[in-house]
Amino acid sequence: MQPNPQRFLNSLHQLRSIGAVGKGVVRPAYTDKDIEARKWLAAQFAEAGLTPYFDPVGNLFGLAGDGPSLLMGSHSDTQPEGGWLDGAYGVMVALEIARAAKEAGGPDISVVSFQDEEGRYGVTTGSTVWAGGRSLEEADTLTASDGTSYAEGRAKMADLVSGDFLDPARFTGFIEAHIEQGPYLDTSGEHVGVVTSIVGIRDMRITLTGQSNHAGTTPMHLRRDAFQGLSEFNQRLNDRLRNVVLPETVWTIGHVSVHPNGSSIVPGRVMFSMQWRDGDSGRLAAMEAIIRETVAEVAEDRGLEVEFGQLLGLEPVAMDPRLQQALAHAAEAEAPGKWRRMPSGALHDTTSVARHMPAAMLFVPSINGVSHNFDEDTREEDLVVGLNVLARAVAAL
Amino acid sequence: MQPNPQRFLNSLHQLRSIGAVGKGVVRPAYTDKDIEARKWLAAQFAEAGLTPYFDPVGNLFGLAGDGPSLLMGSHSDTQPEGGWLDGAYGVMVALEIARAAKEAGGPDISVVSFQDEEGRYGVTTGSTVWAGGRSLEEADTLTASDGTSYAEGRAKMADLVSGDFLDPARFTGFIEAHIEQGPYLDTSGEHVGVVTSIVGIRDMRITLTGQSNHAGTTPMHLRRDAFQGLSEFNQRLNDRLRNVVLPETVWTIGHVSVHPNGSSIVPGRVMFSMQWRDGDSGRLAAMEAIIRETVAEVAEDRGLEVEFGQLLGLEPVAMDPRLQQALAHAAEAEAPGKWRRMPSGALHDTTSVARHMPAAMLFVPSINGVSHNFDEDTREEDLVVGLNVLARAVAAL
Repeated sequence: MQPNPQRFLNSLHQLRSIGAVGKGVVRPAYTDKDIEARKWLAAQFAEAGLTPYFDPVGNLFGLAGDGPSLLMGSHSDTQPEGGWLDGAYGVMVALEIARAAKEAGGPDISVVSFQDEEGRYGVTTGSTVWAGGRSLEEADTLTASDGTSYAEGRAKMADLVSGDFLDPARFTGFIEAHIEQGPYLDTSGEHVGVVTSIVGIRDMRITLTGQSNHAGTTPMHLRRDAFQGLSEFNQRLNDRLRNVVLPETVWTIGHVSVHPNGSSIVPGRVMFSMQWRDGDSGRLAAMEAIIRETVAEVAEDRGLEVEFGQLLGLEPVAMDPRLQQALAHAAEAEAPGKWRRMPSGALHDTTSVARHMPAAMLFVPSINGVSHNFDEDTREEDLVVGLNVLARAVAAL
Repeated sequence: MQPNPQRFLNSLHQLRSIGAVGKGVVRPAYTDKDIEARKWLAAQFAEAGLTPYFDPVGNLFGLAGDGPSLLMGSHSDTQPEGGWLDGAYGVMVALEIARAAKEAGGPDISVVSFQDEEGRYGVTTGSTVWAGGRSLEEADTLTASDGTSYAEGRAKMADLVSGDFLDPARFTGFIEAHIEQGPYLDTSGEHVGVVTSIVGIRDMRITLTGQSNHAGTTPMHLRRDAFQGLSEFNQRLNDRLRNVVLPETVWTIGHVSVHPNGSSIVPGRVMFSMQWRDGDSGRLAAMEAIIRETVAEVAEDRGLEVEFGQLLGLEPVAMDPRLQQALAHAAEAEAPGKWRRMPSGALHDTTSVARHMPAAMLFVPSINGVSHNFDEDTREEDLVVGLNVLARAVAAL
């Protein structure tokens, strides 16, 4: 089978143009631009001889025949300010492999673009619901930061979707290609990474409530300042986690919302996100215990109330050995000595899909490790090496 | 001179009813309810034998004769969700003193309700413009958070106002009574506070810019996390300021805006407000130096860029010794051993007026120190002690 690099790059840039803002793309799940992109993709799938199928949450499949097929793909929704390759690379490279396979009379390759991988309503909600990791009824109650529910989000695709989910058993395996989104391949000058496992993730909203008050007349020692509580928690947590983590373990406070948020008012409430990731479930649990204990301690010291939101999480997942081996052989053939095996620090739809079938991932480099950012980019040469490694691996399966 | 507590309380509750919402009051500057309250006040002034006079920005005076008089008062506009006594107490207690003085053939007492003390369009804009702290032309360009300009705001009172400002030289001094808005008097069980000075205030927006990035794939040691910069700055600042401040000095980070503010994204930018207040200009400057130095240090350590916004500020103002002494003598007579001298941590119209005449302030307690809140309240007994202290002090001048 012979993929066409120019046709692949042309398609990738066409997708980029939908929701383009400068070098980046704004196409969050269920927004008009996201839906426009999915309609365009469905037409591309049809043109390639695949049958488009939108499932009840808006995951878009391009099905190759009715029999068993290998599934490839990723997602086409983006972060609120997203890069042009995150997700899009994996969908478009899959489409090109499916086209090349059809042209060569090769194996049946189906393609997918999962919905809401970026977690506007949670964590990889589209693939999670499809894989049965969360019921649709439960997912429908999730809310985005703008207050809309998942049910309202997916209602925007009501005229496109089918009533039933596809049976995962129709697929023989899943391969997702993705940009690394970290600095390792770019720093080492390697062209591809064969993923060994995907780290586990925990995510929780925490609310600290004190008392909002006049910033001129409330003495420091009488304040119940929720922002000060957050700041002290953060410092203590950083100190404590260093004793239990590995160099690749990460933790992040990415969302902070202060109330009432005026310069002359002592903050009475702060809601923030606490997220942590590691390849070991035991370590994730140990971190959770430290986080809960540290928040509670700071809250007690400062007369604040704590509310812990629901703990969202995904377990670490090992990649399928046979698919991994096929990717490794192909990588060595296409980029001798210029690839590595590596864990994925980012969560991917592969985590959900791996519940039902053998699954694997291939990474291409991210320039300077930048992602979730308009500046996200990858050298064209590396985009094409990734395409060729995938084609070679799939042909050898 | 003999003030009438019941008449005073009745008038105070009548004013409360204009814009009442539950226990609180909603009467921001230039809203219909604010203007309704000012018309009602003008009628009350006239009934008391004072000549109502609206100046070009809507400050309402009740003038006692054409000769020199003592001016008393405060403001009748409120916060968007205001308490019933903030400002209103000072206006209504002044009216009762003016009535009592007229009845007793005592000294001429004029009354004022300044406009926009709560700073819908800036900071104490009505008294500031009257006192020449800001030109009318400049003030007219200020905007509220709803986008309307000060010029548009005051145009709503066009049918009421005169074309000229009153000459401040016609007044021999100014006394403003106000609720404390802090916890000191309520905690100590004292009935009144004689204000020694109004603290100075400094307010500055600071922006830290790092690099937003993927929260799963960016190793901790490569992050340029702007929120972590803010948190570390805050902790270091708290440690350092403790060596240079007094117990009554305050500093506040009340506004925090994180960008892009997603749970899976390392924060690339954070903008926050830094406000600090103290009675001494030298200390305010020393604090500013520590703030700037600490931010710069943290930014350098973490590879962040710093941008300092414009420094807004008002200088500390000492109260007039002779007026202060008259209030202190009267306080000791009316509430022996149950009063104190204290600074004002909040800004007041007195700050503006003190540019032109001897000025002083008297505080009554705020229950639990609560203000700028519907729950704001003061025991009736204390409202009346304040009235009696003022009457005694004015009679002795």
